[in-house]
Order: sequence, then structure tokens, then C-alpha cells
Amino acid sequence: MLKWMQTRKEDKDAELFGSVVDGLKKLYKKHVKPLEEYYKFDSFHSPLLTDSDFDAKPTVLLLGQYSTGKTTFISYLLGRDFPGANIGPEPTTDRFMAVMYGADERVTPGNAVAVQTDKPFTALTKFGTGFLNKFQTSELPCSVLENLTFVDTPGVLSGEKQRIGRSYDFVQVCKWFAERSDMILLLFDGHKLDISDEFKRSIEALRGQDEKIRVVLNKADMVSSQQLMRVYGALMWSLGKVIRTPEVCRVYLGSFWDHPLVNSENAKLFEAEKLDLFNDLFSLPRNAAVRKVNEFVKRVRLAKVHALIISHLRNEMPSLWGKEKAQEKLLAGLEEEFKKIQRNHNVPAGDFPNVDEFREVLKEFKLDKLNSMNQKLIEACDRVLSKHVPELMQKFPQETKNIGSAFMI
Amino acid sequence: MLKWMQTRKEDKDAELFGSVVDGLKKLYKKHVKPLEEYYKFDSFHSPLLTDSDFDAKPTVLLLGQYSTGKTTFISYLLGRDFPGANIGPEPTTDRFMAVMYGADERVTPGNAVAVQTDKPFTALTKFGTGFLNKFQTSELPCSVLENLTFVDTPGVLSGEKQRIGRSYDFVQVCKWFAERSDMILLLFDGHKLDISDEFKRSIEALRGQDEKIRVVLNKADMVSSQQLMRVYGALMWSLGKVIRTPEVCRVYLGSFWDHPLVNSENAKLFEAEKLDLFNDLFSLPRNAAVRKVNEFVKRVRLAKVHALIISHLRNEMPSLWGKEKAQEKLLAGLEEEFKKIQRNHNVPAGDFPNVDEFREVLKEFKLDKLNSMNQKLIEACDRVLSKHVPELMQKFPQETKNIGSAFMI
Ligand SMILES: Nc1ncnc2c1ncn2[C@@H]1O[C@H](COP(=O)(O)OP(=O)(O)OP(=O)(O)O)[C@@H](O)[C@H]1O
Ligand SMILES: Nc1ncnc2c1ncn2[C@@H]1O[C@H](COP(=O)(O)OP(=O)(O)OP(=O)(O)O)[C@@H](O)[C@H]1O
Ligand SMILES: [Mg+2]
Ligand SMILES: [Mg+2]
Repeated sequence: MLKWMQTRKEDKDAELFGSVVDGLKKLYKKHVKPLEEYYKFDSFHSPLLTDSDFDAKPTVLLLGQYSTGKTTFISYLLGRDFPGANIGPEPTTDRFMAVMYGADERVTPGNAVAVQTDKPFTALTKFGTGFLNKFQTSELPCSVLENLTFVDTPGVLSGEKQRIGRSYDFVQVCKWFAERSDMILLLFDGHKLDISDEFKRSIEALRGQDEKIRVVLNKADMVSSQQLMRVYGALMWSLGKVIRTPEVCRVYLGSFWDHPLVNSENAKLFEAEKLDLFNDLFSLPRNAAVRKVNEFVKRVRLAKVHALIISHLRNEMPSLWGKEKAQEKLLAGLEEEFKKIQRNHNVPAGDFPNVDEFREVLKEFKLDKLNSMNQKLIEACDRVLSKHVPELMQKFPQETKNIGSAFMI
Repeated sequence: MLKWMQTRKEDKDAELFGSVVDGLKKLYKKHVKPLEEYYKFDSFHSPLLTDSDFDAKPTVLLLGQYSTGKTTFISYLLGRDFPGANIGPEPTTDRFMAVMYGADERVTPGNAVAVQTDKPFTALTKFGTGFLNKFQTSELPCSVLENLTFVDTPGVLSGEKQRIGRSYDFVQVCKWFAERSDMILLLFDGHKLDISDEFKRSIEALRGQDEKIRVVLNKADMVSSQQLMRVYGALMWSLGKVIRTPEVCRVYLGSFWDHPLVNSENAKLFEAEKLDLFNDLFSLPRNAAVRKVNEFVKRVRLAKVHALIISHLRNEMPSLWGKEKAQEKLLAGLEEEFKKIQRNHNVPAGDFPNVDEFREVLKEFKLDKLNSMNQKLIEACDRVLSKHVPELMQKFPQETKNIGSAFMI
């Protein structure tokens, strides 16, 4: 068993995550969802939120060439095998696997997962059956999974072989998972460094998610110190050009499984690196809580602006004749209307949606059939931002409060 | 004293270098120089070669931010201080210093060096007195310098401070030395990593010389193993983007001075790295010999083509009237004339000089005053390429013979 799981601090982080998620859920249902429904937010922006959208555990996505030790890494963290796991020197994992908490051990195939509304995977249907056949969830009762979900992935092969055989767009699927993950671990094999073109494309598709990326140089004990330095240097040389940020990606060097080190020269270094990685992983629940609050705030602001736009447009419509003409004119001058709303309600331009996309959706509606100003709903949203969320933020320990307040401005 | 100096192999390499240089000198004076003089090669291409052009020892250029340990590194290799050396935590070396063999210890200031035709620095006058005031040679009787010359440089400062104070173009001077060096050592401080914009520009100016570049991550014992990994990773991350080749630059990690290691965790690694670096340095004489042969061959081919061009043009001139008109027409159609020569003498197009630049120089001459075909001189050059140089190459040990023959095709 891994001792690092038992510290009080991490338990607290997990607790915090739970209570923040509960708080957000309640705020949403009571104060925000009514406004979203009233002003048809889902037709213009994104679906109404369900509990599963809030509940999704902080998620760690593992990516890498085949045989770099992704599946072994997850098993190592869990302290046990997970159902459906396959480990071997040949390409073994042949599908995406969400490894998550469940009271009973169970593997659920992708097509079945995609219709379960209590799991955050319904949107995966857009990648088609070709992908769903290569997706599954693996549930098991394991304490680590009470706080984290892992996504294991099929290893990337070099050359065209694999890509041709695939019935879905690997890079796009990786991107989808990456956007919904809180950490992205790129695994490399210190013993056999390889960055194929497809893997490069996958990494490039992570652009904008850079701060989530961590690199693991695994099997670092299989080579001499000098070789390790060459491999590590070569890895950074190439990665810097693929990831392109000036900030250097954090790399963890070590061997992430239960076996004794082959070359123990760097035992101390590897031990320190492992500790850092574990700390990084188990502070995810807290960071994930911050991230959830952040996204919630963004959504509430957008919902409020949406309400102001709809009610303003409705208000500009004549009550008797010439409705069609009036709607046409309003749509044509939508940019000008947005500006009026900015002035009247003192809302920053940056909170507004893209004017062209908004106009396209509006065309599907009759403006006079939409709802007019409902001061109570809007005030409720204002209170969420000015009072309820800051209250929720009180629960964060001092260090993260700053992050919290940064996006409250 | 450094033991690695005494191995037989390196002595042999140094001997080889000497005998190859002597051979080339003789070939040049006897067979090539007469043709170059006859066809005014120096007016069109580059000055006639002097002994000092051949004699210049394999040269190692050191570049880096200030206080990275460049001067200390040279002293360490020499096993002693050199005249004019200054070592300290503040920016100390304030000039370029060629540290080279001399029977007596002596420092010669740049303006005096630039007029010594027995030293390969006369061309430095083009950077002006502003530079020559910041250049000197430092001679001393030290066995290491019998085989190698070192060029110490002023450390780069961050920010604009230094650049504004300088009376010469630092980047261009670095480039000049880099082109004439056999190895370029970029020194970094593991304890205080810094790559200023000016240093980046200097590295970028080394484009095309990439295979000469080696990186030294110095003072690597001053930090913990974990910190060292972060620094080393960050260095490679940035360097890959500045140097831009897919091939990774060789980096030597260690502490290059006489003091005991502060953190001796990586003692074995540093020892191995040092050995590799020394091997790399002391195989320079052999590589330099190969490089000298290579450049000599290139020059002879160019000299021959030059002779063919000049004698062809001279031959096309009328002997009595209409010389000016004829010259104008030949110059205008120079590209066509080059093609004729290619066909007639079976010379590859790649051996020809740039047609526009050549035309510009030709304008300064009267074609009918130039020399006509001299079969004997040209045959002598042919023999140099087909017979004498291959004979010289016989002296190379088997491994390098292959490199040698590669450019003889
Ligand atoms: N830290 C390690 N040191 C040495 N060998 C390891 C290590 N981790 C895993 N391995 C070995 O590497 C091979 C591949 O492991 P694993 O199947 O976990 O990799 P994977 O990245 O999941 O591969 P795939 O992409 O094919 O699913 C196995 O033989 C495993 O025993
Ligand atoms: N291997 C080393 N480990 C620790 N300190 C070192 C090492 N080498 C040099 N130093 C120290 O670093 C400082 C700078 O050394 P040195 O003057 O040789 O650097 P430099 O690169 O030549 O600097 P400048 O560019 O200013 O000429 C000195 O205090 C020196 O003692
Ligand atoms: Mg696997
Ligand atoms: Mg110095």
C-alpha cells in the first residue's frame, strides 16, 4: 500500500472538493438554472448542467507511446490491478479506459456508458460507434479513486500502421479528454525514447491546456546515469519545440512501479521526484475545486448577460404591427444593441457572446415570443456572484483564496 | 597536472595534424599558389594563403554569460593561470583573448596582433580599433597549447547595459571566431541559469556551425540533484528552440575546476562526463586535420574553375577591334558562358561562383589583359586533387579515412 495516501492534508483537500461541489450544485439549481431555463440559455450556449457535471472527480489523463508504462503506472497508484487492465511489452491497451470509483468491480463498454446520464461521458457519442467500441469504464472500490479518476489510453505506435487501422480520430478524442481533465501526464520511456509524429500531433492538440501537462520520464533506472542525462536532454530539446511555451514543463524522473531499481545510482533523486509527483497529484482535488468555482462563475456571468440581451431585444419589439421588420432590423444592428446593453447595465464587452454566432441562433426564434425582463431572476444571479460564491470561497485555505479572488474581479 | 594529456593516441593525433598541415602547405605553394597568382584569384575570391593560415592550431571558442566559469575552465585545462587571466564573481574578462602557445609568457594587445602576419588574426582589423582595443593574445609555454588554442571571451551581461557600452559588434565578432574554430563551447552556470537575449543572438549567429557546438553545464555540483535536473531540463528546453536542429547538442554536466565537489551525489556522473569532454577536446587535432584537408580541396577546385573561367573569357575576346563591345556582351551573357565552360570541361555547376558577384568584379578588369589558358598550371591543380591529396589522406588512421574519402568524390 502507498503510504502517501493517508496524510491529513490530502484528506482535507478531498473533503473541500466535496463540499465545494455540493455548494455549487445547490447554488446552480436554486438561483441559476431558473434563469437559464427562462431565457433558453441552452439553445444559445450549452446544455443545462446536471449533477454529473458537478460530480465528476478530478481527472488525470495518461498519454504516451505504447509500452511506456501507462497502465502499470495507474495500477501502481491504485495499489492493485483494475478490471480490464492489460500490461505487457507489446502494445496492450487497445481502448480508452476511465478508471473510476465504484462499489463493485465492473467494466462497462462504451456504448452503454454513453447513455448513462450519471456519468460525464454522454457527449462522447459525437465520436461515433467506431470510438465507443474502443471506450469503456472500469469501476472498482479503491480509496484513491474516491478522489481521482484516471483515463488510460491506447499507446501511440510509430508510423502509419495504427492510424490507418483506427475507426476514430485519436487526436480529437485525446483533445476532448484533455479539456475535461485536471492533469495530463505524458509518459516517456527512459530506456527507449520515442516521439512519433502522431504523438507530436496529440501533444500539439493540447495547446491552451499547457498548465495541466506534466511529463513522466519512466523506467529511468533502466539506463546508466550518463545515458539518462542524454535521454532526458533529448526529451526536453524536442518537447520544448512541440509544446512551445517559454515555461518549462515539469518532468518527473523515476520508475513508477513496485519493482526494485535496476540501477540504483539515482535512488535518492527518484524518491524525491516520486514524492513531488504524488504531492502534485493529490493536490488536484483542491485545484479542481478552484477550477470548478472558476468555471461556475464564468457561466453565471454569461447567463446574466444572456438574460439581459434577450430581455432587451424583447423589449425593443413593437407590441402590434411590423414585428418581422423590427426583428430583422434588430438582428442586423445586433452589435449596436449589444453596445446599448453594455452602457445601460454596465457590463464589460468581454462578457458578451460572439455577435455573429448569436445572430444565427436568434434567427430560429421569434423575438416577441421570448421572455422579457425578470428583475428577480437577474438579481438572484447577481447575489450568487457577489455573496454566495465568496462565501463558498471562505472554505478555501488561505493560499488558494488568492487564486479564487483573482477571477472574481 | 591532468593525466589525460599524456595518452599515446592524442600524441599521435597531434603529430598527424602537424604532418598534414606541412603537406598542405607544400602542395599549396608549389602547385596551387602559382595558378592563383596567374589568374588573380585573390581579386575575385579570397587572399592568397600564408603559412599562418595553415599553421593555426585547432581552436576552441568559449562563449557564455558572465561568471559561468569560462576563464576558470581554460586555466583548469592548462593546469595553470595564463597571462592576463582574471577570475572573479563579478564580470571580469573584458576582452577577447586568444590563449596560445609561445616559448615565453607574453600578452600582446590587439592592435599589435593585427599586424603580425604570422598570426591568423590580421583579418580582425575589419572590426576596427574599437574592437582591437578589446582583443589580445596571451602566449605561454604550456604543453596543452601545443595542440590547441583557446579563445576566451567577455561574458555576456543581461539587459542592454553592456551592449550600449561596447564599441564593436559582439555578435559579429563571435561569429568570426566561431567560423574559424573547431569547437564552440557554450558555458552555462547550473547554479544560476541565464540565457539573455544577446547570448541568444550570439548562439543564433552560429547557425551552420551547429556540429561544432558543445554545451557545458558548469558548477553542476552547487545544487541538489533535483535542482540540477530542473536546470538541465530548462536549459535543453530553451536551447532546442534557439539552436533549432533536430539533433540534440551534446551537453557535459560537471564542475570544471580543481576544487572538490560541493554536492558529491553525482560524482560518478560528473567524472564520466569530464572524461568524455576531454576525449572530445583532444580528438580535435585529428578532426581539424580532416577539416583542413576538406577546405583545401574546396579551394583548389574553386581555383581551377576560376582559371577556366578567366582563360575562357580571355579567349572569347577579339584580338584587334571592338574589345569594349565584346567585353560588355560577354559580361551580359556571363551565365551562358559559365554553362559553356561546364560543358566543355565537364565541371559541375555547383563548383561555379555566384555569377552576379563575379560579374561585378570582372567590370574592374579589361578581359584582354587577363591571362589565357595555361594548361600546365591547370594540370598541376588536377594532380593535386587526384594524386597528392589522396596520398596525404593515407596518413589518416582507418576511421577517418572514410570521412576523408567522402569529400573527395
Ligand atoms: N517502471 C517500469 N520499469 C520497467 N519496466 C516497466 C515499468 N513500468 C512498466 N514496465 C514494463 O513495460 C511494459 C509496458 O507496460 P504497460 O503495459 O503498463 O505500458 P503501457 O504504456 O500501458 O502500454 P500500452 O500503450 O501498450 O498499453 C511491460 O512489460 C511492463 O512490465
Ligand atoms: N566549477 C566551478 N564551480 C564553482 N564556481 C566556479 C567554478 N568555476 C568558476 N567558478 C567561480 O565563478 C566565478 C566566475 O569565474 P570566471 O571568472 O572563470 O568566469 P567567466 O565566465 O570567465 O566570467 P567573465 O565572463 O566575467 O569573464 C569565480 O568566482 C569563480 O571562482
Ligand atoms: Mg496500457
Ligand atoms: Mg572570464
